[in-house]
Amino acid sequence: MSYLNDPNISKAALVIVGNEILSGRTRDANTQHIGDALNKRGLALVEVRVVPDVEEKVVEAVNALRAQLDYVFTTGGIGPTHDDITAACIAKAFGLEIEENAEAVRILEEYYGADEFTPARRTMTQMPIGAALIPNPVSGAPGFVVENVFVMAGVPRIMQAMFDHVIHDHLKPGSAVQSKTISCGLPESSVAEGLADIQKDFETVDIGSYPQFKNGNIGLSVVLRAVDEAQLAAAATRVEALISDLERQA
Amino acid sequence: MSYLNDPNISKAALVIVGNEILSGRTRDANTQHIGDALNKRGLALVEVRVVPDVEEKVVEAVNALRAQLDYVFTTGGIGPTHDDITAACIAKAFGLEIEENAEAVRILEEYYGADEFTPARRTMTQMPIGAALIPNPVSGAPGFVVENVFVMAGVPRIMQAMFDHVIHDHLKPGSAVQSKTISCGLPESSVAEGLADIQKDFETVDIGSYPQFKNGNIGLSVVLRAVDEAQLAAAATRVEALISDLERQA
Repeated sequence: MSYLNDPNISKAALVIVGNEILSGRTRDANTQHIGDALNKRGLALVEVRVVPDVEEKVVEAVNALRAQLDYVFTTGGIGPTHDDITAACIAKAFGLEIEENAEAVRILEEYYGADEFTPARRTMTQMPIGAALIPNPVSGAPGFVVENVFVMAGVPRIMQAMFDHVIHDHLKPGSAVQSKTISCGLPESSVAEGLADIQKDFETVDIGSYPQFKNGNIGLSVVLRAVDEAQLAAAATRVEALISDLERQA
Repeated sequence: MSYLNDPNISKAALVIVGNEILSGRTRDANTQHIGDALNKRGLALVEVRVVPDVEEKVVEAVNALRAQLDYVFTTGGIGPTHDDITAACIAKAFGLEIEENAEAVRILEEYYGADEFTPARRTMTQMPIGAALIPNPVSGAPGFVVENVFVMAGVPRIMQAMFDHVIHDHLKPGSAVQSKTISCGLPESSVAEGLADIQKDFETVDIGSYPQFKNGNIGLSVVLRAVDEAQLAAAATRVEALISDLERQA
């Protein structure tokens, strides 16, 4: 059984509202941050969808994923410009009206001062009725939560600050997943048979094999992940022995 | 009308088979490469899904997307180890048997030499019946194509070499999308109203507004994308004038 099926590990998806990711202009950094932070907290990111800034596509992705999983995070599309459509999409996904969130108005009035709280900035307080706020210590305008859907900014520094609040205030911690990486210079095919045997003997450990290029040479990282530290250590010992044996023969 | 609705622009999705992306261990680079290369060729990446190394999830994503879109690309999971399940998933998605591809056997026999063509390496020739090959000039083992689904390696250097072949051998070029980026130090809210007006006047130009942090200061990039170069230039002139006016007032 993969740790992904551990009942003590809640499952989450990320929906990236991101024309700029799809066009290749920007390389997404939020998946890596969220995946890593969830694993450390004992949850697992099990799907990511990048969709364009098109209402129908955002609504479809959010509704498909929120029905299947414990948590859905969204990043992007909550600023003050015409292409910021995420709040309206979330309202539509839940069949809720959208309105000025009074608490968000209070926060932004204080953040900008009454004179600088322009109509454009005020649009960032438009949220589905009943949404709870996610604080934004970086740039003021809050994200929000509706049921199990957490709506955050796309700019990584802002998203990370919001996600700290989400993790500590809203997500139930689970069984932390431990990992161990064993690297070598062997070709992947040489470890294939031995790794498959070890995987069979350790059903609760997820063993992944990842070749990469380093300075023009092919390298290999074997990554083991598990909740059970003793099983993880025992499987890692087997992998290390396999690699040592193969290196001696090479 | 967004350029995404241009009938001369084929639409594609990417399915990343990637436990290592979801866990945060690896930051995906393939989305950016594919998105950018497609735009240059006159196609558009309109969705990305990152799914775990779980057969059911890969099959579900591939089948949902291949029915809706012109092309689906997959990256990852085609090596020789137990966690490389993509070929089996694609066979299942199409209801095809999986078998040794004779042409792939010939290629790998030549690449490795008969002595080094081990059983583990031979597993990389298992493909859905009737698959056409995608050459791999970097590390030998080919990717493959079934109908509109293109199966490639996950390692970026290998994927990029395969994708060059896919682009030139298989994808129908369309209307190239031109883009123009205008950067400034204004807050996003100050350009919001003016940008919305310009967007209304140029329906065939997609105008996106992207704030970011640069050296601790917030910056703003306005990105315009369109097939029609004259419309793009006219819209860009309007955006530049808007920003100049606002900078003078600031």
